Amino acid sequence: MGEWLRSPIRGVLLDITGVLYESSAEHGTVIPGSVKAVNRLRESGMPFRLVTNETTTPTTVLLDKLRSFGYQLEERELFSPIPAVVKLLHQEQLVPHLLVHPKVEGELRVGEKGSPTSCVVLGDAEDNFSYANLNSAFRALMVMPRPRLITLGYGRYYKHNQQLQLDVGVYAKALEFACGVESEVVGKPSPAFFNQALADMGVQAKEAVMVGDDISSDVEGAQKCGMRGVLVRTGKFTSSLLPHPTITPDCVVDNLAEAVDQILAAKGKN
Amino acid sequence: MGEWLRSPIRGVLLDITGVLYESSAEHGTVIPGSVKAVNRLRESGMPFRLVTNETTTPTTVLLDKLRSFGYQLEERELFSPIPAVVKLLHQEQLVPHLLVHPKVEGELRVGEKGSPTSCVVLGDAEDNFSYANLNSAFRALMVMPRPRLITLGYGRYYKHNQQLQLDVGVYAKALEFACGVESEVVGKPSPAFFNQALADMGVQAKEAVMVGDDISSDVEGAQKCGMRGVLVRTGKFTSSLLPHPTITPDCVVDNLAEAVDQILAAKGKN
Repeated sequence: MGEWLRSPIRGVLLDITGVLYESSAEHGTVIPGSVKAVNRLRESGMPFRLVTNETTTPTTVLLDKLRSFGYQLEERELFSPIPAVVKLLHQEQLVPHLLVHPKVEGELRVGEKGSPTSCVVLGDAEDNFSYANLNSAFRALMVMPRPRLITLGYGRYYKHNQQLQLDVGVYAKALEFACGVESEVVGKPSPAFFNQALADMGVQAKEAVMVGDDISSDVEGAQKCGMRGVLVRTGKFTSSLLPHPTITPDCVVDNLAEAVDQILAAKGKN
Repeated sequence: MGEWLRSPIRGVLLDITGVLYESSAEHGTVIPGSVKAVNRLRESGMPFRLVTNETTTPTTVLLDKLRSFGYQLEERELFSPIPAVVKLLHQEQLVPHLLVHPKVEGELRVGEKGSPTSCVVLGDAEDNFSYANLNSAFRALMVMPRPRLITLGYGRYYKHNQQLQLDVGVYAKALEFACGVESEVVGKPSPAFFNQALADMGVQAKEAVMVGDDISSDVEGAQKCGMRGVLVRTGKFTSSLLPHPTITPDCVVDNLAEAVDQILAAKGKN
């Protein structure tokens, strides 16, 4: 049993893209062993939740995709920034200027049409990240009496179609610099977001582990929140990442199957 | 005589966009009083140079535009990042991956076609700052054994067509975050760039003043270099800029004419 498992694990958080499946221009491909690993977690009675920063697809479409790969999942098991930000917008009566993927614009449109915007919401807009659209978001922030930049995640890049591509955090950083504001993150690595999933399992951070392919959003985010953070060698992982100057994962595994093997082997032994 | 002029001024550096003319979709418009102010500087024998981060236009085209407004200038009086970076690329035998404005691509293409790129050169690419192009630059950096990000300026925004629009520094910041690299600035506020213009006048930094509309690239950049920094209320200036949390201009004036009035009134008095 690895050192990182000496203190018991009572709940598991799983990243989706790069852990359950590899993203591509079409449907993506399932990662070998991951479906069985999720089934084994469920059969063992180990609580788990999925925590994703995926904002190019509505949650229901993402669930359908995962089910088509063979994953048996319920919507309540999936935590995504989109419902979280919609809740925030309603609670604080914010009208967003949206710079997001066209597929999720509908879900995020809150407030009366034509009313002045009071925040910018930034998602993984992909090709919508044009110079014109980034300028519009910038100008919207510059005229707000109290500019608020809300970003759905803070990732640097992810793997799509066997290539690395820029993630929303890069554009959040750009607008922060342009306007002299700090962004508010909804999604990983925000502790509030992780804590929502932990509370739903009724598990404390120190008893939980996050498994992901992003050394920053997943591993460092989990560790800063008091969890353990396991890095998989699938998804966006490249060997040049390690050793990392500031982040040391609690464990590095080939894939989710190996992480689940270790977690379940330790179960009951401590 | 203002406090900032107690120690003598022996050379003047002038920003161009927002100081000599206001930028627009068409030709732009001359700023009232600026042509006369430049003429007065020359007649008084006060050495001056133009230092610009303008990289959407070849230097010769920019000079033609300035002359069409009535400015009498020689090419050797204008310092722009484009010739400076071309020199650097040749000196260090670098082959650039270019993310720049289409109008200046030709000038910046250095190295044999098809040879592997060894740096990314970032200019004010405007609409060329698409998601696809930023991804290409990002991927180019990620495969370089020793990634070098060279940026032609580090500005946040400028005024064009009576609107603020994002400048190259915002995209430099984005790529720095994505790749974990620091960019090398060619242009303002790099001290090497200011020093080139100072050396050309044979004037020391402490005897010189920079006049510009960018509180960061012009004013703070000049001050960090040992010069005085004067902010004009033309160009991108907005009153919400002042007081600035960290930068205090040596003087704030309505326009270049007022700056030159003060500089020439003090001449010979100290």
